[in-house]
Amino acid sequence: MIAAADRRRGPGVAASDPTNKDRSLAALDRLSALLADDMGSVNHIIVDRMQSPVALIPQLAGYIVAAGGKRLRPLLTLASATLCGYAGVRHHKLAAAVEFIHTATLLHDDVVDESARRRGQHSANTLFGNQASVLVGDFLFSRSFELMVEDGSLDVLRILSRASAVIAEGEVLQLATNNNLDTSEAQYLAVASAKTAALFAAACEIGAVVAERPAWEAEALHRFGLNFGIAFQIVDDILDYSAREALLGKTIGDDFREGKLTLPVVYAINRATEAERDFWRRALENLEQGEGDLEQAIQLIERHRGFADALDLAREHGKIAMAALLSLPMKPIRGALANLVDFCIDRGF
Amino acid sequence: MIAAADRRRGPGVAASDPTNKDRSLAALDRLSALLADDMGSVNHIIVDRMQSPVALIPQLAGYIVAAGGKRLRPLLTLASATLCGYAGVRHHKLAAAVEFIHTATLLHDDVVDESARRRGQHSANTLFGNQASVLVGDFLFSRSFELMVEDGSLDVLRILSRASAVIAEGEVLQLATNNNLDTSEAQYLAVASAKTAALFAAACEIGAVVAERPAWEAEALHRFGLNFGIAFQIVDDILDYSAREALLGKTIGDDFREGKLTLPVVYAINRATEAERDFWRRALENLEQGEGDLEQAIQLIERHRGFADALDLAREHGKIAMAALLSLPMKPIRGALANLVDFCIDRGF
Repeated sequence: MIAAADRRRGPGVAASDPTNKDRSLAALDRLSALLADDMGSVNHIIVDRMQSPVALIPQLAGYIVAAGGKRLRPLLTLASATLCGYAGVRHHKLAAAVEFIHTATLLHDDVVDESARRRGQHSANTLFGNQASVLVGDFLFSRSFELMVEDGSLDVLRILSRASAVIAEGEVLQLATNNNLDTSEAQYLAVASAKTAALFAAACEIGAVVAERPAWEAEALHRFGLNFGIAFQIVDDILDYSAREALLGKTIGDDFREGKLTLPVVYAINRATEAERDFWRRALENLEQGEGDLEQAIQLIERHRGFADALDLAREHGKIAMAALLSLPMKPIRGALANLVDFCIDRGF
Repeated sequence: MIAAADRRRGPGVAASDPTNKDRSLAALDRLSALLADDMGSVNHIIVDRMQSPVALIPQLAGYIVAAGGKRLRPLLTLASATLCGYAGVRHHKLAAAVEFIHTATLLHDDVVDESARRRGQHSANTLFGNQASVLVGDFLFSRSFELMVEDGSLDVLRILSRASAVIAEGEVLQLATNNNLDTSEAQYLAVASAKTAALFAAACEIGAVVAERPAWEAEALHRFGLNFGIAFQIVDDILDYSAREALLGKTIGDDFREGKLTLPVVYAINRATEAERDFWRRALENLEQGEGDLEQAIQLIERHRGFADALDLAREHGKIAMAALLSLPMKPIRGALANLVDFCIDRGF
């Protein structure tokens, strides 16, 4: 058994500065502060364009949009465009389009995962029903493309329609890895790259496109976003086993209860004894879970360095992301982006 | 009670030529024959572009695409472009994009309606699960936009992204009319126009766009598609109460069991006695249904001319559709389109 205090501190990772979560938020705040005016415009567009004569649509969309998302993805679009020297307003509409795609996938995810909570509040499907969540997701997705069409860049449309298809592929691939003990590290990374990192990458890349920068710059921003996104997802999956995650408003152990093969678990299973494998098979494949099983899972993951090795891999991807930034102009916004990666990786630990 | 033979013949509408269903299919076949080469290319693109390294995607998409859809919407794109004198191949990809949007909405509809069957076969969500149906719908929707981006017309992208948003609005609006006895004829028509006719209209309109025809021609085709779509949906809703519909492979009484306020029911409720209203409230609002209730519903609809008046309204919209065609060039394809409208309205009666 791990001590209750250890469990509260978060699993498997050496206890570090308890203010890291605050620093992670501060890094986000710093970026937000640099882009406050732009973000104000984006929020205005988001609220404006979720309207519909069909009352349930702004009700439901407003609920999820107001539910305290970090607006991380639209911030990436704004930051990338600004870093590329863009001085117009086209990126506002495109950042809103990115957030709509993200919101649509959240709505569909919660239906797919049968999640009851999201960011510490009831998920939209719990309050409004699965039917409305599916359909309002479709609406926001369509609205996102309408915004892009208004902007008029076929390059942006190409990048974001491709990313949307890749996200859906990633989500379907994840269905195949759920409850599947044979899931490999490579399969996990394929899912994370597709379902999460593809939109991070696209959100960054289109910043270079609106700024009309050369292809290598768009590629550097794509690489930055992709690796940041992979790191972000790995850390998210570690935090799903962390008591401190409760502070972030997420239910703990969701992934375990749903039998998701996230990276810490993949490592623990790769290194499991026969008896441990039986435990994982019962808990994750057969979903026969009882009292104390989540703690048992955390213990096994710690025993096999699942959390620590996952965090190491997140940090590696974080470094690749940082390296990609180096080819871009040295501006305050670049430092803020680098800080954000750093602290997103260390959040909660 | 209505006699079993009458029920088999179809409700409320004077028994007419028993071969009407065959003639309706023949009208579709005639149009298909005129466009056979084009449709072959479209089918090739559909199969090609539903591929994905994630095996479940082509499996599920292939199941629903192969499940015997009529390909009515892509046919409308091909027919419209041809009628406008277009001689290239751009409309092949765009027709496939239209079919992907339609297929995505079918997948999501079946999840929303919890339908067990579609076109006489198990619906995709029954075989593959709701999760996969939601996500593969998202994939096909994204793929549809990728196809449009490859084509490169911002006008087409604008028309189809707008139609997609309107479809979602229509589906959400329908949620609000379900189980709601106060649903008016106007609300029913708003739902039908949005969820069905908007895509018919867009599918036709983009035919004029690829042919680079003037705006009035695109508008005429839009009007044709919109009114054809409304008529089509009204007839579909009549057929949901028709025993003959079983021949088309659809379960009968689905709308009744789900408490949908379709046009024949709206008419019957508008004209209901107090006792009849109690029946409708119990059956459609409270969904307390027992043996004989579907027959009772059919009887009440017939008593108040619900089927006949709905069919009359379908025919009116059919006439507006035909009138819109008159401003377009007189070619065999125009006659085939007019025939298709005629026989789609009379199918099953």
